[in-house]
Amino acid sequence: MTVSGDAAGGTPRRRYAILADGWFANHHAKTAHGLLSYGKDEVVCVIDSTLAGRRARDAVPGLRRDAPIVGALGDALERGPTSIIVGLAPAGGRLPGEWMKVLREAADAGLEVVSGLHQRLGPELPGAKVWDVREPPEDVPLFSGEGFAVKPKVALTVGTNSAIGKMTATLEIERAARERGLDAGFVATGQTGVVISSWGICVDAVVSDFIAGAAERLVLEAARSSPDLILVEGQGSLGHPAYSGVTLGLLHGSCPDCLILCADASDEEILAKVPRPTPEAIIPLYEGVAALVKPAPVVAVSVNTRGLDDEAARTFVERVAATTDLPTADPVRSGAAPILDAVLAAPKTAASRVQ
Amino acid sequence: MTVSGDAAGGTPRRRYAILADGWFANHHAKTAHGLLSYGKDEVVCVIDSTLAGRRARDAVPGLRRDAPIVGALGDALERGPTSIIVGLAPAGGRLPGEWMKVLREAADAGLEVVSGLHQRLGPELPGAKVWDVREPPEDVPLFSGEGFAVKPKVALTVGTNSAIGKMTATLEIERAARERGLDAGFVATGQTGVVISSWGICVDAVVSDFIAGAAERLVLEAARSSPDLILVEGQGSLGHPAYSGVTLGLLHGSCPDCLILCADASDEEILAKVPRPTPEAIIPLYEGVAALVKPAPVVAVSVNTRGLDDEAARTFVERVAATTDLPTADPVRSGAAPILDAVLAAPKTAASRVQ
Repeated sequence: MTVSGDAAGGTPRRRYAILADGWFANHHAKTAHGLLSYGKDEVVCVIDSTLAGRRARDAVPGLRRDAPIVGALGDALERGPTSIIVGLAPAGGRLPGEWMKVLREAADAGLEVVSGLHQRLGPELPGAKVWDVREPPEDVPLFSGEGFAVKPKVALTVGTNSAIGKMTATLEIERAARERGLDAGFVATGQTGVVISSWGICVDAVVSDFIAGAAERLVLEAARSSPDLILVEGQGSLGHPAYSGVTLGLLHGSCPDCLILCADASDEEILAKVPRPTPEAIIPLYEGVAALVKPAPVVAVSVNTRGLDDEAARTFVERVAATTDLPTADPVRSGAAPILDAVLAAPKTAASRVQ
Repeated sequence: MTVSGDAAGGTPRRRYAILADGWFANHHAKTAHGLLSYGKDEVVCVIDSTLAGRRARDAVPGLRRDAPIVGALGDALERGPTSIIVGLAPAGGRLPGEWMKVLREAADAGLEVVSGLHQRLGPELPGAKVWDVREPPEDVPLFSGEGFAVKPKVALTVGTNSAIGKMTATLEIERAARERGLDAGFVATGQTGVVISSWGICVDAVVSDFIAGAAERLVLEAARSSPDLILVEGQGSLGHPAYSGVTLGLLHGSCPDCLILCADASDEEILAKVPRPTPEAIIPLYEGVAALVKPAPVVAVSVNTRGLDDEAARTFVERVAATTDLPTADPVRSGAAPILDAVLAAPKTAASRVQ
């Protein structure tokens, strides 16, 4: 992976074929969907033999960009991709065996292989050009506190659960900020975000003593190119036992001035026996643990109302706004302006405080 | 490193020479001090040319075992060690260059080299027998929730800061439990603890997505051999920005039924601009984040009064007991009985709760 901003530095753009065979319409294909909706690089096609001949936006409503779906690698190669990306992010999982064969063929045809899996593909595809997105830089430092002094305001998304739309919310707020003429930067901390922006560190792949140091380094780098506002993509949730360590390392390491809570209307358990906290239950905990190091109030709630009709979505937004007493909006459905306003109104905070 | 309990399995004991040249009396030599006080393996000598001829307990008052201090590797070899251990744990750091030469000579003399540094010594000492204590097992799983169902009660030490004596407190409570005839187990989660017990995982060296899974696996393994009580060594602090991710991953992953807060009388900052929280300020946060997954009340405070005279120590213990309204004791100074009583009185808790 890279932490130097090669997107800004004139590196030729990638032209992606997305490998998601049998999975493209599944929510586990979130790297595929994220790249289509928010990527800066072109997507020439999706490979999914179960959906061949259809269009991406037809198979997955709500995508911001479209692409043809083809049935096999041969069809994809005719469209001139530079890179093939594994469009699946199974939790902790390894790549389906049959996909390796396709990737080997793609590499033999001259394509770069891009993967965000924990499993590294470089060693398994000798001779191929591989971008293992999750491979962290070798020189990630320990947290130093240097991040306390960054000049731009820093906002971080946090969630009532993982996989709740933190990356999307962060990107929508960035877009809204840029539309207002602000020099805002998106800090990618997960595999899809890093692919989208060709920059960042997958903090969940860093050795755990260095999570906070990785987050701090990203914010320090972003401060150089985004003087107005830094928007950090959150990970996991304080309430998800598998990922809460990543969540808190990122929360302390990125030295945010304020937080944006991401929530949805689901009441499914986070994990068997682990209930999903309400926004009003988890907000004081996010603020409490943040304030041990540097105060970072939750200033807005970004809700994900995908799958609800307009009436149900409006009711949900109103309920969350009432129970949290915070500006609340679904940035995908109705724009991120109310959230951005709240972030811009929040003060910079200082590290020290009396307990 | 190993997660199989080779200490129990009849593996020959090690006979350690501790390399701490110029550092033995420094508090950064905590691996050396911990091994001397609590290790099950013999320590034949300490190597520190600045203290040669003295005794370990003379140079570092309070150690539970003694050993001669010698000036050079040659003197150490005469005492018949099987292993040489790097007795220093610099934060995130690498080994002083001149020490590598000594380790190479020790390896050439047939000694095993033991190191708890993040820096792996195996690759740097080709042909040598090296135990890189921080090297995690290759098959650490994601957190699954299986740990919610372990039969023994699980208690975890947490702290107002890192390096405050959590390992020592945990070992003292284990000792008190064994003295009462309980089949209690110590779960080692850091390099010194793993060296002491020849078992465990250094959770701060695990890729961050797998911290909680590593902690859960340790508790599941410990439950097989310690049916009465599992005592988990905590790491870092919820209030230390560099390590809080490790702290929380361990807190959720180990599925504790109760917590023991470790505190000392210092009011030094945790890090520049990061104040040290009081016990009463941080207890609700530990309990709050734990309860998102599984309730785990703080049932006692273990204080570290090293350096205080008896009167000052008693005053401090009384003050903490009053402000927290919890049983409070310094287990090194006066025994862990009050803390153990509180742990034994605490109920097992269930994962699920209504938010």
